[in-house]
Amino acid sequence: MTDTAVAPRTPVTLLGAGAMGTALARAWLAAGHPVTVWNRTPARAEALAAEGAAVAPSAAAAVAAHRLVVVCLLDDASVGEALDGADLTGRDLVNLTTGTPGEGRARAAWAEARGARFVDGGIMAVPPMIGVPESGGYVFYSGSPELFEEHRDTLAVPAGIRWVGTDPGFAALHDVALLSAMNGMFAGMLHAFALVRGEDIAPKDFAPLLAGWLTAMAPAVHQTAEQLQSGDYTKGVVSNLAMQAAGIPTFLRTAEEQRVSPELLTPYLDLMRERVAQGHGDEDGTGMIELLDLRGRS
Amino acid sequence: MTDTAVAPRTPVTLLGAGAMGTALARAWLAAGHPVTVWNRTPARAEALAAEGAAVAPSAAAAVAAHRLVVVCLLDDASVGEALDGADLTGRDLVNLTTGTPGEGRARAAWAEARGARFVDGGIMAVPPMIGVPESGGYVFYSGSPELFEEHRDTLAVPAGIRWVGTDPGFAALHDVALLSAMNGMFAGMLHAFALVRGEDIAPKDFAPLLAGWLTAMAPAVHQTAEQLQSGDYTKGVVSNLAMQAAGIPTFLRTAEEQRVSPELLTPYLDLMRERVAQGHGDEDGTGMIELLDLRGRS
Repeated sequence: MTDTAVAPRTPVTLLGAGAMGTALARAWLAAGHPVTVWNRTPARAEALAAEGAAVAPSAAAAVAAHRLVVVCLLDDASVGEALDGADLTGRDLVNLTTGTPGEGRARAAWAEARGARFVDGGIMAVPPMIGVPESGGYVFYSGSPELFEEHRDTLAVPAGIRWVGTDPGFAALHDVALLSAMNGMFAGMLHAFALVRGEDIAPKDFAPLLAGWLTAMAPAVHQTAEQLQSGDYTKGVVSNLAMQAAGIPTFLRTAEEQRVSPELLTPYLDLMRERVAQGHGDEDGTGMIELLDLRGRS
Repeated sequence: MTDTAVAPRTPVTLLGAGAMGTALARAWLAAGHPVTVWNRTPARAEALAAEGAAVAPSAAAAVAAHRLVVVCLLDDASVGEALDGADLTGRDLVNLTTGTPGEGRARAAWAEARGARFVDGGIMAVPPMIGVPESGGYVFYSGSPELFEEHRDTLAVPAGIRWVGTDPGFAALHDVALLSAMNGMFAGMLHAFALVRGEDIAPKDFAPLLAGWLTAMAPAVHQTAEQLQSGDYTKGVVSNLAMQAAGIPTFLRTAEEQRVSPELLTPYLDLMRERVAQGHGDEDGTGMIELLDLRGRS
């Protein structure tokens, strides 16, 4: 935050004082930014008033207060409702509300038609990570590069910033893609803990093995990326799909022996079998991406 | 491998010269251990002869050659077949064949009934990682602690060693649990790559973001372990299941917008909804483990 110390702090309007909005407001207040906040139910905004925020009586009034308007509401529909009566002309709208890429793109067109510049953001953090640089939390941004450049120091106050392009859908796309991958990893972890449960294996002894193994295997994404980039799914393959598929019965029988439902594993194993059955046993797992592509499926 | 330099190298009998067996044999040969190898089809064993291994004409002859017998075959049935006519009395049998915990336990009882000591191993590495300490590959071992202690220096030659207990099923259990979790992570990665595919996002630019995020999130296992240990699934929760479940439509609509099948995600999201519907929305994801436990399910 030291790089913002030379200039006067940009005032920020914030719509939404839920757990995330409140964390954002506190980070800007702590860094000396004037903050005007509006929340549909006033109680949470008033809590921020005690910490130095100005409370606006309406979303329109909050938008009128400052040029930089940050929106962090429940969903995209709430954004439309809140901004319905506001004059967005000349405003810089930063939408940190969780949504889909399509919602980001539609909201960008909507904002631009009303005379605003727009960037969408995808927050890769939970509220306790906001304002804590060492937490590693960050926000994906996409949309207007002019808005982003002008406000990057202010945007960098609550969390790290990652610019992912001018397509206003890309911030949400990166956000959802990474969170989806995380859900896959969490599903795998849950199955692993379920397998060792009921045995004389302490979760605290097992956890470091699990974390260490997943951390060691995560760089496999780089090989996947190279294969996707080249279109050659056999490139650099060590354990090909046919070899991996040969291990499927061991996964399923182990789940059965340990009385664990295999439901979190089976879709991936089924996809593996399907790809091998199609004659792609010499490929890496990357080739299974073709089976997920609904454009390519009949 | 320097700690084995003071003693004469223990001779090793190796049954199985597939990709993994061959890698193991080479690591022991390189470290100066006499190696006697047997393989069902002789060609691969003969390739090792050129590198200094003795080739036995039968599995029984190979077992007769040395006390330490390492078995790395296709599956547990192959182990039974190969050792059928061999005299195991006084032998130290190290079974690195992939199998289930139940197979490990049954094979241990079988070997002990024939006068052998037994440990089972689960290899957390692919063949190119064997004999390369910096690869981070290692082998889980469980079973006879006396066998393991006596041969630990020899066993440590091809890869790192992790002792996980006297239950001969525990090596396989740890192996399958970690590989299952990895499959979950790989499933999540595949879905993420599928989402950004077809957009102007280079896989090589996306991969570091994905790897970084998963690596940052992997330590969540420690919180899961604490919650399992305490039995309190609400302990230290930041984003509870109800909040996570509120994000499900965004995951599914994004997949739909990007024309990606949600099949790798839905089992985890369905489990999340089921647990919330049961009134556990205040918990962390850990509580979903109850739904995987077939012992607890009616």
